[in-house]
Amino acid sequence: MAVGLQDFPAIPEIDGVRIGVAEAGIKKLNKKDVVLFEVCEGASVASVFTQNAFCAAPVRVCRSHLAQTNARYLLINTGNANAGTGQPGVENALKTCQALAEQAGVSVESVLPFSTGVIGEPLPADKIIEAIPAALSSLSSANWADAGLGIMTTDTLPKGSCREFEFEGKTYRIGGISKGAGMIRPNMATMLGYVCTDVAIAPDLLQQLLKKATDKSFNRITVDSDTSTNDACIVIATGKAGNEMIASLETPLAQAFEDAFTDVMQELAHAIVRDGEGATKFVTVEVIGAKQTDDATKTAFEIAHSPLVKTALFASDPNWGRILAVVGRAGVAGLDVDRVQLHINGFEIARDGGRSPDYLEEHGVQAMAPEDIHILVNLGMGDSADTVWTTDFSHEYVTINAEYRT
Amino acid sequence: MAVGLQDFPAIPEIDGVRIGVAEAGIKKLNKKDVVLFEVCEGASVASVFTQNAFCAAPVRVCRSHLAQTNARYLLINTGNANAGTGQPGVENALKTCQALAEQAGVSVESVLPFSTGVIGEPLPADKIIEAIPAALSSLSSANWADAGLGIMTTDTLPKGSCREFEFEGKTYRIGGISKGAGMIRPNMATMLGYVCTDVAIAPDLLQQLLKKATDKSFNRITVDSDTSTNDACIVIATGKAGNEMIASLETPLAQAFEDAFTDVMQELAHAIVRDGEGATKFVTVEVIGAKQTDDATKTAFEIAHSPLVKTALFASDPNWGRILAVVGRAGVAGLDVDRVQLHINGFEIARDGGRSPDYLEEHGVQAMAPEDIHILVNLGMGDSADTVWTTDFSHEYVTINAEYRT
Repeated sequence: MAVGLQDFPAIPEIDGVRIGVAEAGIKKLNKKDVVLFEVCEGASVASVFTQNAFCAAPVRVCRSHLAQTNARYLLINTGNANAGTGQPGVENALKTCQALAEQAGVSVESVLPFSTGVIGEPLPADKIIEAIPAALSSLSSANWADAGLGIMTTDTLPKGSCREFEFEGKTYRIGGISKGAGMIRPNMATMLGYVCTDVAIAPDLLQQLLKKATDKSFNRITVDSDTSTNDACIVIATGKAGNEMIASLETPLAQAFEDAFTDVMQELAHAIVRDGEGATKFVTVEVIGAKQTDDATKTAFEIAHSPLVKTALFASDPNWGRILAVVGRAGVAGLDVDRVQLHINGFEIARDGGRSPDYLEEHGVQAMAPEDIHILVNLGMGDSADTVWTTDFSHEYVTINAEYRT
Repeated sequence: MAVGLQDFPAIPEIDGVRIGVAEAGIKKLNKKDVVLFEVCEGASVASVFTQNAFCAAPVRVCRSHLAQTNARYLLINTGNANAGTGQPGVENALKTCQALAEQAGVSVESVLPFSTGVIGEPLPADKIIEAIPAALSSLSSANWADAGLGIMTTDTLPKGSCREFEFEGKTYRIGGISKGAGMIRPNMATMLGYVCTDVAIAPDLLQQLLKKATDKSFNRITVDSDTSTNDACIVIATGKAGNEMIASLETPLAQAFEDAFTDVMQELAHAIVRDGEGATKFVTVEVIGAKQTDDATKTAFEIAHSPLVKTALFASDPNWGRILAVVGRAGVAGLDVDRVQLHINGFEIARDGGRSPDYLEEHGVQAMAPEDIHILVNLGMGDSADTVWTTDFSHEYVTINAEYRT
């Protein structure tokens, strides 16, 4: 029941990146559950990972490998998160990296492992290793659609985004995929996201741009407030477009890239919300008029996490008192409730600490009817603002998560 | 579907307190929706209220009246919360106090108003005022059961608790009622709680004891993480037992009272969880081995709020990886995941950063089957601990909250 999620786009081939897919039979038969990215030598790679202290074994291995050398292969499996698996989990992740490294003729440290799926079960490393030859032999720059399918778990649809932009007569390309539907409140990244570009861009700058774009995309979405153990987002800049390496944000090409890159990151993040478990609404929560951004951010997330607000959204019920109640408990210092204003989809609902004088129940009903809902809260305290995106809370959410392992 | 909630107890009459009930027809016909407490002169009254900045009009009026004089009447209505109603809400609350004050021959400041129900609708003050004569004429010390029923909103059962204790040959009594099932994450108090005793106890000490007991009861429960705008808990000590006024916690009678009082407060708080909206489980989340209490408290609340943990509890699914994932994101500084241990209902589930070596799926299934679930997390960092109580997350919860206003 994805909410207004577009069809998977025709992502262009990114020179310097090839993608392979295979079936390892980890959880289901006849499902592509292993995806491989091959990255050309000399590419810049940037990454952000979950801040969950219980980070998964592959996240630990990724961090260690990235500190040692340039990445040449990303090895992704679904069906098993290899999280909560202790030291044996790390050894299993390393075993799969080792197998790929030997067959591809690279060092084990140049392979980055990623896993997603059930937490706490031992990783079936042997099944993944058996699937590596097939994944290698399928390597192609045209495999984006299969990769989008191959990293799905409870996602109902694959998620991709791309942009081409021109600069001084040359065309540059960005393409990416993401996955995730539940356990979504990324903190540094989302469940899994991979973005590639042919722009030549220095690693430090790429990392800086990834951090900035993540804070406007994956770090501003939430389905159910639970931060995954496996969140990771990787961006690869192959440099094959042939531009002079960009090393500063203050160049026109860097700015053009940042705009397009932020679009792609937001589209991938929004796709996760639109496909959020049980989602029937795509909800934008915008908080303005804050004294500091942090107040706006936390108020927006508290609204987005409130089960009472989310069930009212599911019912298309203009029970706006629940939104005000959340604003009041969000911990904004010095909040004067008599200055708070609430709009939903353009309708003024509340002001001066209560219902707007002209508000009618039919306005609320009309405001809450569409699939896309825009909640706008003005705290009336200053000029800072922030926006997060979320879903409603439906019976389907309960069904999916009560029956996830059955 | 209350989980193991006992029948309403035979609460003894508390000398110095009389209770009246009436039907004002605020939301439904033929429902007792107005409750009155009459308190003798000279009683000590202590109170805690919601910390939600969007506190309801009656909470504002209560705070103002308590600062001016001793309370003589509590006037409670259900069906309408008089919250999010701005200045007109305050005026409506005062109007009802004024009507009662005139008929009872007391000052308006000695009347405390309380409301619970839908947020954001104007209070039907006239209906309440019309019901006051009937409530006054029904005043009796034996009306506890009707009062328990009279303060219910989405509660499925009334909630009461009482204790009698002996000290130096004299019998002392405590009785109380509470209400609440949704929008439950009290912060200073619960939705509504009223406890009376005949012990003579100085106001300052009573306030201190209420604060302590609240932090072990109402401030440690959560159903859905949403703090109400109307939370209030009131304790009345009439002094009619005739003991010498207790003014220090260091006396044996104060200690005996504190023990019995804390029991009553916990029983009332647990009753709210057992009757939590859609609850099929009563869940105790105990976090031990913390470096500081705050770490234990926040970890326990994060587990109790996680929709993924709550839906797994609903399914009786031992998906313990979700619990570890929450521990990892709870923000405990210096957490070493390899030292974390998890027990559920006495079964060791996880240790050393992963599944316990002897764990079998059947242990997990057995651990998660009962209605009462005890989740025990040892952070392995120190000697501090805390406990919170919560519910699971069911289809019924979504149904109740999606259809609340229809």
